[in-house]
Amino acid sequence: MRFEVLILGSSSATPIYGRHPTAQLININEQLYLLDCGEGTQVQLIKYGIRSNRIKHIFISHLHGDHYLGLIGLISSMHLVGRKEELHIYGPPALQEIIDLHFLHSQTVLRYPLLFHPTQDQTGESILENEHILVSSFPLDHRIACTGFRFDEKKRMPTIDRTKTEAIGIPTAYLPLIKRGNDYTASDGTVYRWQELTLPPPIPRSYAYCSDTVMTERYLPFIQGVDLLYHEATFLHDMLNRAVETFHTTARQAGQIATKVQARKLLIGHYSARYKDLKPLLEESKSIFPNTDLALEGNWYNV
Amino acid sequence: MRFEVLILGSSSATPIYGRHPTAQLININEQLYLLDCGEGTQVQLIKYGIRSNRIKHIFISHLHGDHYLGLIGLISSMHLVGRKEELHIYGPPALQEIIDLHFLHSQTVLRYPLLFHPTQDQTGESILENEHILVSSFPLDHRIACTGFRFDEKKRMPTIDRTKTEAIGIPTAYLPLIKRGNDYTASDGTVYRWQELTLPPPIPRSYAYCSDTVMTERYLPFIQGVDLLYHEATFLHDMLNRAVETFHTTARQAGQIATKVQARKLLIGHYSARYKDLKPLLEESKSIFPNTDLALEGNWYNV
Repeated sequence: MRFEVLILGSSSATPIYGRHPTAQLININEQLYLLDCGEGTQVQLIKYGIRSNRIKHIFISHLHGDHYLGLIGLISSMHLVGRKEELHIYGPPALQEIIDLHFLHSQTVLRYPLLFHPTQDQTGESILENEHILVSSFPLDHRIACTGFRFDEKKRMPTIDRTKTEAIGIPTAYLPLIKRGNDYTASDGTVYRWQELTLPPPIPRSYAYCSDTVMTERYLPFIQGVDLLYHEATFLHDMLNRAVETFHTTARQAGQIATKVQARKLLIGHYSARYKDLKPLLEESKSIFPNTDLALEGNWYNV
Repeated sequence: MRFEVLILGSSSATPIYGRHPTAQLININEQLYLLDCGEGTQVQLIKYGIRSNRIKHIFISHLHGDHYLGLIGLISSMHLVGRKEELHIYGPPALQEIIDLHFLHSQTVLRYPLLFHPTQDQTGESILENEHILVSSFPLDHRIACTGFRFDEKKRMPTIDRTKTEAIGIPTAYLPLIKRGNDYTASDGTVYRWQELTLPPPIPRSYAYCSDTVMTERYLPFIQGVDLLYHEATFLHDMLNRAVETFHTTARQAGQIATKVQARKLLIGHYSARYKDLKPLLEESKSIFPNTDLALEGNWYNV
């Protein structure tokens, strides 16, 4: 099953050096989810060949402009190209007020249902579940209310070991039952345990997204053991004071966090405009957590 | 004196084919004015080498997203790069409410004064005057309250005819007086009329901006006799019904309007996403008003 992240925006506050404000697209089994939506996200989607109407769920971490100012343009364009399907938006309660105020004054009545789900930044919370995934939000520590998001793939059923079932001659009608954990009794009375007839499913994968936060212990339990951890790394560690003052993280700290939570891989982003060259950020994080990669726009990252 | 228009965005509602939502930059004697501010305008400014902090006045025609959704990102970026100088914004009263709501929730206190000047769409009105220009707003006929803007260069003083003043031997201290219309009496009693000693100033130029409107008679008096008329031309004339229904104009109508108001030159823009190739729009307008040009992003147009 596909589980990948496309970076649409990797810049912090201002667009610069061809980098855009934060947005990421998650593809889980061809279902698309958008994480944050900085200004210009709809143009980035076009650039990377993504039809925006394939997106069904948008998650906004917080109300700093570089994380949501592309949202109204995107939902307006979805309306203009004739979307009919529901769109779910998850974000701080005030985001609904902002969206409503815009559509009040532009006198727009969307042609599709927009369902708003307010998030809160006090505790971790499951916010979406479907056949493939469970999405939860969790509190980050930023200057204003901010949540991270975690995507956990659901445990899948085992797959049938066809070589065995065919050798025994089990009719295909029984296979779904075996997948669900039922043993098979042959006509001669032999009982085959379902475990013998199946192969173990792939281990569920997980992705956590920490958009803007100062480094604290509080949110670490929520990102424990993720396969891929995206964590902001706005500054190099020589700017630690500035990072703390602005409630951001350094590349070294991102590496420390990935180590602490035993992530398999770390992706850093949200680069300050002071870094045209990103190599020093990558090297600093790698010195602590070797399996670090830079979030680069247009790249897909496997979870 | 420089009086030029840079097209930053030429698309209607949605960004497409590399075209962006509406924004234009006016350079009048190295003073910069921004007309509308669609999503991504700050990136377009960077692309064309314009430092956004040189802009002192921003005019927003109406509250459809494709004309203002880049504004909050732009004023936030001005803040982040350390702007100290006043910024004046002219637009519908509700725009202030939208700006305030954003900065309330992002908990941002701008480091520079932002002065908001509400516009109204009932009558024409002078909204800004300085040594070089007079800017006025005027009502357009769109689905929601919408104003156009007109920039009139101020009448300049005549220039001194140096060949003559030097031949007569007029001391330079007198020249500013002559420029202001005082005659000169030589020591032998000869009176030289100021008209003889000066060359006529250039004729004042004017630019009118009609962002989104259906064609009506109501706004024509306000754009009478402009040198350069920008007029939206969202559709070809075979889409007249759609144009009327959506309160927009066809390319043929734009040509008719330019003819009626005796504009010197017409610039059309705000192209519908249905036109990848813009030549048919240009040809349709030219068939009525030959001196038409397409508004193309990145091009400067002399007024």
